[in-house]
Amino acid sequence: MSTLKILFVLYPGVTHLDFTGPHQVLSRAPGSETIVASLGGQDIEAEGLTFTNLADLSKVDRCDVICIPGGFGTTAAMLDEAFMAQVRRLGADAKYVTSVCTGSLILAAAGFLKGKRAACHWAWRSLLEPFGAIVGEERVVRDGNTITGGGVTAGIDFGFVMLEELAGRDYAEAVQLGLEYAPDPPFHSGRPELARPEILAQVKARMASATDSRSEAALEASRRTEPA
Amino acid sequence: MSTLKILFVLYPGVTHLDFTGPHQVLSRAPGSETIVASLGGQDIEAEGLTFTNLADLSKVDRCDVICIPGGFGTTAAMLDEAFMAQVRRLGADAKYVTSVCTGSLILAAAGFLKGKRAACHWAWRSLLEPFGAIVGEERVVRDGNTITGGGVTAGIDFGFVMLEELAGRDYAEAVQLGLEYAPDPPFHSGRPELARPEILAQVKARMASATDSRSEAALEASRRTEPA
Repeated sequence: MSTLKILFVLYPGVTHLDFTGPHQVLSRAPGSETIVASLGGQDIEAEGLTFTNLADLSKVDRCDVICIPGGFGTTAAMLDEAFMAQVRRLGADAKYVTSVCTGSLILAAAGFLKGKRAACHWAWRSLLEPFGAIVGEERVVRDGNTITGGGVTAGIDFGFVMLEELAGRDYAEAVQLGLEYAPDPPFHSGRPELARPEILAQVKARMASATDSRSEAALEASRRTEPA
Repeated sequence: MSTLKILFVLYPGVTHLDFTGPHQVLSRAPGSETIVASLGGQDIEAEGLTFTNLADLSKVDRCDVICIPGGFGTTAAMLDEAFMAQVRRLGADAKYVTSVCTGSLILAAAGFLKGKRAACHWAWRSLLEPFGAIVGEERVVRDGNTITGGGVTAGIDFGFVMLEELAGRDYAEAVQLGLEYAPDPPFHSGRPELARPEILAQVKARMASATDSRSEAALEASRRTEPA
């Protein structure tokens, strides 16, 4: 049996829990090799944690699962042609094209989400639209071989959906027990429709400063996916 | 206002999600500095991810919150006197003494849990007993200034309990919305009492091979906490 290659693609400004969550789940898939890579194998700093010993994206020959996490760096990443060329190359042959959080914007900029339903962090879902993607509001959205998770912590739910797909339900349930994944948040404010209006307003206001530049970047990236 | 120092203590064989989960939450505490440290500042490999740029534990002068994650390396760590000396020194002055998963065994071995209720990964809870700790089966257990989380993913729930403590409920709810923490596992096998009996038996069988050596290590560490 050949080894199943699961690739996590890092870039500067990634949010670490976007990939450490699903990595902890998926690195336990039987018969698999988990590769964590960046452009040139550069170390990646992510909100106070620095990841080293990364594979060089350009030297990863292929993968079965490509997973792109999100973060505030998505905007710069989707306009970085050297980075995007590697995402396009590796995603084109992958059996599963996947993301967590705003990682779906990178998949979209790579041209993988045209006409497909996909998830994204709730605050940035509308940025999928210029790419011709269809916004899904579920925590994990599946459209054929494209499986995308919502914001940050949705990566863990995504990880278990993916692990069931790769290794079957019994195996995935055993890993869930091993990781004691029976979440029990002390309060319930994790989606716009659950949050108190004043909390939602506060978070939206904080994000507003980034909205214009991110929208512009998404438009620019969407133009690049059009035939010249 | 002085900066609130939040310290995560890493060691070889730590489980990365045990600390990346609460780190993603707590590093957003206002007016705080998050320090991630290891003995000698050595890089830490954790199930396929390598963390670098770590602070040297012996050079951290003090902290307000000490958080010890768990992992299969806890057994070796709690018998490593140089490591334990730093945990004892930093924990003794901390305002909050905290852990995730089997990190509570290290707190216990440091002498911080005598007569206290504490959480641990479900499979290793009984190892708290030789230290005179009282096992709590909740996902997050609080006993005075000691706040401990259960296995692996409980670290995120712990993070939000801790963030509410440090920054208030409104702030914690805003971070929960930002991290989209409205978990929705695709199946429900994350605690022994939820798992199907055959899945529980399978996971217990896999852990059995480690049980004897871990129990021995806990006994040895507990003897070291007794006055000579």
